[in-house]
Amino acid sequence: MVLGCIMGDPGRAERIVVKISGKLISPDHPELVEDYAAILGRLEEEGYRVAVVVGGGHVARRYINAARRLGSNEAILDLIGIAASRMNAYLLALALGGKAYPLVARGLEEFMAFWSTGKIVVAGGFQPGQSTNAVSAILAEAIGSKLIINCSTVDGVYDKDPRIHPDARMLPRVTVSELVKILSRTQSHKAGKYELLDPIAMRIMLRSRIRLAVINGFNPENLARLLGGESVGSMVEPE
Amino acid sequence: MVLGCIMGDPGRAERIVVKISGKLISPDHPELVEDYAAILGRLEEEGYRVAVVVGGGHVARRYINAARRLGSNEAILDLIGIAASRMNAYLLALALGGKAYPLVARGLEEFMAFWSTGKIVVAGGFQPGQSTNAVSAILAEAIGSKLIINCSTVDGVYDKDPRIHPDARMLPRVTVSELVKILSRTQSHKAGKYELLDPIAMRIMLRSRIRLAVINGFNPENLARLLGGESVGSMVEPE
Amino acid sequence: MVLGCIMGDPGRAERIVVKISGKLISPDHPELVEDYAAILGRLEEEGYRVAVVVGGGHVARRYINAARRLGSNEAILDLIGIAASRMNAYLLALALGGKAYPLVARGLEEFMAFWSTGKIVVAGGFQPGQSTNAVSAILAEAIGSKLIINCSTVDGVYDKDPRIHPDARMLPRVTVSELVKILSRTQSHKAGKYELLDPIAMRIMLRSRIRLAVINGFNPENLARLLGGESVGSMVEPE
Amino acid sequence: MVLGCIMGDPGRAERIVVKISGKLISPDHPELVEDYAAILGRLEEEGYRVAVVVGGGHVARRYINAARRLGSNEAILDLIGIAASRMNAYLLALALGGKAYPLVARGLEEFMAFWSTGKIVVAGGFQPGQSTNAVSAILAEAIGSKLIINCSTVDGVYDKDPRIHPDARMLPRVTVSELVKILSRTQSHKAGKYELLDPIAMRIMLRSRIRLAVINGFNPENLARLLGGESVGSMVEPE
Amino acid sequence: MVLGCIMGDPGRAERIVVKISGKLISPDHPELVEDYAAILGRLEEEGYRVAVVVGGGHVARRYINAARRLGSNEAILDLIGIAASRMNAYLLALALGGKAYPLVARGLEEFMAFWSTGKIVVAGGFQPGQSTNAVSAILAEAIGSKLIINCSTVDGVYDKDPRIHPDARMLPRVTVSELVKILSRTQSHKAGKYELLDPIAMRIMLRSRIRLAVINGFNPENLARLLGGESVGSMVEPE
Amino acid sequence: MVLGCIMGDPGRAERIVVKISGKLISPDHPELVEDYAAILGRLEEEGYRVAVVVGGGHVARRYINAARRLGSNEAILDLIGIAASRMNAYLLALALGGKAYPLVARGLEEFMAFWSTGKIVVAGGFQPGQSTNAVSAILAEAIGSKLIINCSTVDGVYDKDPRIHPDARMLPRVTVSELVKILSRTQSHKAGKYELLDPIAMRIMLRSRIRLAVINGFNPENLARLLGGESVGSMVEPE
Repeated sequence: MVLGCIMGDPGRAERIVVKISGKLISPDHPELVEDYAAILGRLEEEGYRVAVVVGGGHVARRYINAARRLGSNEAILDLIGIAASRMNAYLLALALGGKAYPLVARGLEEFMAFWSTGKIVVAGGFQPGQSTNAVSAILAEAIGSKLIINCSTVDGVYDKDPRIHPDARMLPRVTVSELVKILSRTQSHKAGKYELLDPIAMRIMLRSRIRLAVINGFNPENLARLLGGESVGSMVEPE
Repeated sequence: MVLGCIMGDPGRAERIVVKISGKLISPDHPELVEDYAAILGRLEEEGYRVAVVVGGGHVARRYINAARRLGSNEAILDLIGIAASRMNAYLLALALGGKAYPLVARGLEEFMAFWSTGKIVVAGGFQPGQSTNAVSAILAEAIGSKLIINCSTVDGVYDKDPRIHPDARMLPRVTVSELVKILSRTQSHKAGKYELLDPIAMRIMLRSRIRLAVINGFNPENLARLLGGESVGSMVEPE
Repeated sequence: MVLGCIMGDPGRAERIVVKISGKLISPDHPELVEDYAAILGRLEEEGYRVAVVVGGGHVARRYINAARRLGSNEAILDLIGIAASRMNAYLLALALGGKAYPLVARGLEEFMAFWSTGKIVVAGGFQPGQSTNAVSAILAEAIGSKLIINCSTVDGVYDKDPRIHPDARMLPRVTVSELVKILSRTQSHKAGKYELLDPIAMRIMLRSRIRLAVINGFNPENLARLLGGESVGSMVEPE
Repeated sequence: MVLGCIMGDPGRAERIVVKISGKLISPDHPELVEDYAAILGRLEEEGYRVAVVVGGGHVARRYINAARRLGSNEAILDLIGIAASRMNAYLLALALGGKAYPLVARGLEEFMAFWSTGKIVVAGGFQPGQSTNAVSAILAEAIGSKLIINCSTVDGVYDKDPRIHPDARMLPRVTVSELVKILSRTQSHKAGKYELLDPIAMRIMLRSRIRLAVINGFNPENLARLLGGESVGSMVEPE
Repeated sequence: MVLGCIMGDPGRAERIVVKISGKLISPDHPELVEDYAAILGRLEEEGYRVAVVVGGGHVARRYINAARRLGSNEAILDLIGIAASRMNAYLLALALGGKAYPLVARGLEEFMAFWSTGKIVVAGGFQPGQSTNAVSAILAEAIGSKLIINCSTVDGVYDKDPRIHPDARMLPRVTVSELVKILSRTQSHKAGKYELLDPIAMRIMLRSRIRLAVINGFNPENLARLLGGESVGSMVEPE
Repeated sequence: MVLGCIMGDPGRAERIVVKISGKLISPDHPELVEDYAAILGRLEEEGYRVAVVVGGGHVARRYINAARRLGSNEAILDLIGIAASRMNAYLLALALGGKAYPLVARGLEEFMAFWSTGKIVVAGGFQPGQSTNAVSAILAEAIGSKLIINCSTVDGVYDKDPRIHPDARMLPRVTVSELVKILSRTQSHKAGKYELLDPIAMRIMLRSRIRLAVINGFNPENLARLLGGESVGSMVEPE
């Protein structure tokens, strides 16, 4: 029973942060946006309080590439990537209708104000230098969530890059420090580059004992299955 | 000499509004963005003061289509189209570097504040119910410009739709009321639909005697040629 | 039974947009402001959700005239007219007390945030180039209302201008296109000029199938009578 | 030579705060607005840096009276009076054109940002509980001005109310404490009530050694005459 | 029974404004912050609606002193004192958790928006020229509270300064005008100077018939005792 | 000649980011604030364009400790630490007077707008999850600076903690990766903890080839000496 231990306080709504890749919440996949809205709405009815963070995906990538060619520096590239992530976040907020706060939160103070209304709150990026994974971790900390669910484009965490190594093995459970070692071989520092776990997110997970579930988000039902107690994808432990 | 008559006040910098289609200023065409930045920068050096409005283009279209499928109404679709137009506008502002105000104006009051710095100001859409063509007309009126240059995806105004009628003829000169008749046969009222001249823009052109040049924006040099006095595209007269 | 057909979805609060002329909601008629607050409060208790848009009226007219004499252009005149409409809107919000959101919405995004609180939301104008009639239509679309009630200074729509033609006849039912023809003979394009139906409002009514009731707002009870099913004033159909 | 002593620092532009009654800057007197814009523009050309505060006047009075009848409390009445003062302030900013910052400052931080552009900055009221006279004093302190010129609707300070006492005598020179005694017999505490010198303004004048010239603003030339060294109206000395 | 007369309207939650000295709500006394959060939370559960204003205290004093040495004028000193008061206010909001709106109100309009959510709202200072005592009075007026409770660093109002006169006597009941006389011998006009009752607060108490209880806030239970009907500290009557 | 290589583009003002510890710019050391203002002003006169970032220091530490005791989580602790850093930043902006933009930048977009005025811009923290060191790196990237000068409370980078190891040796030159190894033995992840180089700052230095000078900021002249070409403190190279 994967999630038993996070349900400590029965009198309070269970709080979770759902990070969804911008490759999933985008104009390319309106059906996925619809599915996610349905599942997040269901979670809310079941008593969860949910904060959602959406990444920039292909649209961000395209604007970043264009701006880089125009000579923009990395900090500015982050700004335009953040703008794109907010477009995707807004798309999800629209699909959620009255269940979500109708504006996308642009920073933690704004998020806290929106969150106090009791609705689902959707955010994109906050500030240059932080990936949307970092934003997820900050929000988890701020609302007292002990679990981030990363609806990603991979099945979970592998011991090596599965695109290169056919013998790569998915790890159902991995510690942050193990993950850091795995990632250190593959990641880059350019703006908008895909990063499963950036240094801020890692630091926050450690200091506030937050777990990170990495699941394949192309199938939104994985989210429901995970919360139902099934073993899906990988669980990164703040150990 | 097409533009002679607009240069009435030699003591003041000539003011123009340049509307550029979101199909031209977009991540799909960084080289066009670069070219437009170069030409607009040159215009400024030659003593023009320039306000620029950028449309939403394909990115807007894709978000609007996705949001429509998610059940959003037209007013909300406008909102997401406006957000997309601001991304394109920001891309152009980045390419302009220090010559442009570093933020995209989101309404007329904000525009006036940015404009007072003396820099080129770039805007996308302002509010639902207004196309970026309407925004161009509002800005022209606000800054006292008598000319809007619409860098569009067509060569100019035709007497019938050239995609259907092989014998369509481009009109070097046309009045607003003639244009209204031509357009009334082809336009739709859906959010983000292409509109060369929306009702607000038309009304403003008439009440403030503003001319509208329609040129093929795939070749940015058309902009320089037009201001150099050459006959390019069509001139819509507020008559 | 005029309004039967708009009550399709019994599980959801009926949503209506009430546009009130700035000649009615103004410091000149505190008793009318009081009456409107009472009726709108009653509607809310009966289960309606209500968005209200207030025009600029005489105060707007006076500021616009003064600013025009000072050399302001039409776009800037719109700005000062919008500011005046917000003063009137605020007056109504004050009269509504705890039933209304305590700030006046200045754009659609802000409106949606205020609307999500469940309270009555009052707006004035949004942006230059849009009359408060256009704002009403945008709000109707955004909240999914199929009816705008225009509390105007006339009894309804006439086939000709009743101030000039003693034989003018009020039309209980008229289509948008018929109204356009009637208005095309009388309207002007100056900022703040009285307009029953501006081009944006018309376009939105058509694209989203919204009806517009025009009633004499000097008697606020007309509003309650209309919603009670009586035939009052004219109904403009999006046909 | 009334103003000689305030011109201590020849290397820096002389800074003055001009308070103008809302009875003078209003849509009722566009010609006065025009005259003030001309004079303030001239002052700027002569090397003064000028901050302007405009009161609410008749429009504020009418909204306050209406809102009071609707049951609003005094703090809220202040809010609507402040909104009206900003409309008048905006009218003056429009008349000043490019010489003024194009937005009305709504608080001290915003004022300081606008002021840093080098332009004339116009403000109305800031917050409930403060009259526009208090705002003038705060701005004088903030920009290091040693003189506030109050363009009022009276000729100057009288030893008794001249509307009642035919033998009232205008005082060319009076100390703050003398003025307090004179005013204590006539002033009221209701929102928007005319107050030549509210307690905050008085306190600030004392603590920062600021002088207050009270002149008849129906003749804008009085402003130029005063700065030219003529004896006009009354000078209130911070002792 | 001190408070009996303020409880006139049994159908509406009793509204009170609690002003707490920045010497009590500060990082120096986290245990006091905790105690106040507990008591304010309890009051809310008992059916009170509570607005809280927190002063700047020692932190404000230190920043003001430093800025004064750097040559800042009094208006700017007020700004930095206001910033410090908001830090203390935020500390209290944090301690109140979900019972308080998560942002500190920075002006009356913002306060009214936050207040409309039904939560406890915490403010610091608003604008230069106003002490946090003035803010308390403005809020009392705005929300229709007839009682401000000033949790101060003294036991109550004395007939003379008890730090100097061993025979000073605390006054259980005093009128505003008596208090003014007492204070006129001791107060200064410098920014951030301690003031039990500034001129704005006094004027508002008089015009809206608001009472001010002055209690020793080092013992937070005094607040509960006062509301329970015990005689604690001094009651200043708007007489 | 330490800084020779960063001065590549003679036609453009040299741009530098100066990070100053909140232990130096604080109300505890007004004389240091004064000294820094003088030196930064001098640098600007010599043709540098300067962005300044100020940390939270002791005030931040005290608020964070108090809030932690009140049960706040780390993300919220970051918020209050950021608020404190902005107080210190404001103190420096005040001391800089007209040479600095009069508001503290709260995010990168705001910073870019302020920066476009040509003035010195001062910032504190931006968002939770980012130290003020990260903000320095983001700003360096955004303005195209190749050098951050960290005015810290230590003499430079040591090979071990000099407070513990008497034989610790200061390193005049060190690479980022060497520094990471040194720091990995000493740093903690709690909010507001002192960090010479957080992971974001490091990543940005690497991706944009920015150097970091660490100098003892208790002597502000070290800043001038460093820019004058002297060897002061440690230079961290993006190698």
